[in-house]
Amino acid sequence: MVKVGGGSSINWDELSDDLARIWRREPVVVVHGASKELDRISSLLGHPPVPVHSMSGIQSRYTDDATMDIFTMVYAGSANAAAVQRLRRSGVDAVGLSGLDGAVLRCREKGVLRTRDADGRQRVLRGDRTGVVTEVNSRLLHLLLGAGYMPVLCPPAISDQQRAMNVDGDRAAAQVARALAADTLVLLSDVPGLLLDPADPSTLVKDVRRHEIGRAMEIARGRMRLKVLAAREALQAGVDRVVLSDGRVSEPISRACRGEGTVFRRRAVPRSRE
Amino acid sequence: MVKVGGGSSINWDELSDDLARIWRREPVVVVHGASKELDRISSLLGHPPVPVHSMSGIQSRYTDDATMDIFTMVYAGSANAAAVQRLRRSGVDAVGLSGLDGAVLRCREKGVLRTRDADGRQRVLRGDRTGVVTEVNSRLLHLLLGAGYMPVLCPPAISDQQRAMNVDGDRAAAQVARALAADTLVLLSDVPGLLLDPADPSTLVKDVRRHEIGRAMEIARGRMRLKVLAAREALQAGVDRVVLSDGRVSEPISRACRGEGTVFRRRAVPRSRE
Repeated sequence: MVKVGGGSSINWDELSDDLARIWRREPVVVVHGASKELDRISSLLGHPPVPVHSMSGIQSRYTDDATMDIFTMVYAGSANAAAVQRLRRSGVDAVGLSGLDGAVLRCREKGVLRTRDADGRQRVLRGDRTGVVTEVNSRLLHLLLGAGYMPVLCPPAISDQQRAMNVDGDRAAAQVARALAADTLVLLSDVPGLLLDPADPSTLVKDVRRHEIGRAMEIARGRMRLKVLAAREALQAGVDRVVLSDGRVSEPISRACRGEGTVFRRRAVPRSRE
Repeated sequence: MVKVGGGSSINWDELSDDLARIWRREPVVVVHGASKELDRISSLLGHPPVPVHSMSGIQSRYTDDATMDIFTMVYAGSANAAAVQRLRRSGVDAVGLSGLDGAVLRCREKGVLRTRDADGRQRVLRGDRTGVVTEVNSRLLHLLLGAGYMPVLCPPAISDQQRAMNVDGDRAAAQVARALAADTLVLLSDVPGLLLDPADPSTLVKDVRRHEIGRAMEIARGRMRLKVLAAREALQAGVDRVVLSDGRVSEPISRACRGEGTVFRRRAVPRSRE
């Protein structure tokens, strides 16, 4: 189970070839983002991104109806089709799906969004099209996997009101990993993993045990907080291992599976005697 | 087998409810266009549509690489997701696919495009991303239909070079109808059918027998020529009946199946004795 971040520096050539190699041995499901491309297209269309900060300090995007339309167009159209084409060139029979298709990603609508401005003032934003994934249609994913296709998923998800909603891709990937009883969830982005000092790659946190996740949440800044939250949700749901890893390098998934990056484990691993 | 045109006046509310009713009785596959929305978004993004006319006088869109990216974004993102959402609200478990997914629509690249200017001058355009559908992955469509999902397809198709290509939606629908051995293909658009005088709906051509298709091609103007071509290809491929019908009315598919619009038949129908 692999989630690929929406940063512009992800190396999709290396990633696709690596995924193709792994795919020959075992089933893989990919979830991807498209945040950078969404920023670009929505700015071009006159709807530049509006960042908001939740009460717990997590940054996200205010998603009004116009933004949601562009979101769907960019994620399900641009980015998903680009990923499918790139994977096909590596020999993978990929099938792209947004969370709307067969309701692969069902969510609950968050409703009003409570935010905190830079100066600490609280605000209530209405009309926000943000949701939280509550259910994954694993039947459709198993159907495709069983027939030899690699499902390539992306937000939006669909609510009970049958509306497309913006959901966090990392947390959606954690729910997919749970629904498929995946043993490993790899979260690739444009950083090497969780860093004590975001400016210094040598401060990489290599291992996070389950009781240390609270501490990891304190260390994480910005988008990394959502990745740690996703890791926690995946471990709680029974996934054995979550790896936050670098998507800009060669063989990024193989490296992550070898433990490069920040590894979260559900169970303590007995140290090998040397 | 239903193809829905990309005109802005298609009544998707009526269409979805009608499709949902039919869906409860028999399997349906939908192919849709998005030409009007593509014109709108590509103009907003600074790439207004460039119409070209083939040597045989059929109008199409010059599709360079930048246009192809916007094409994919609008068809596979915007329009496909909107159709899936609308169908879900009517109670249909729809799964949206572009022709790239599982290579549902395979095509051959046309290569250079020979065009004729308004003043009759011939030109050769290079770099055109246009193709002709050569093969349909009916296995994936049957897989989804068999599991209770309604496949909702759209261009682009994918070439042997694994590139996304612009293909005509009506002709793609004819190939899908053939691959699924559909008995009826309905081509909905924002006109009542083939008209002798495009400005006068009372000049509707009600029936076209197989030997009359050449004559129908002469009558047809503009986009309608491609629809008649698609009808001919579908009949040649064994589809029993093709109906060009109005997508702006209530119960558009049921009306088409009752014979409203222009009906092309593969075999002569014995007249009932009165």
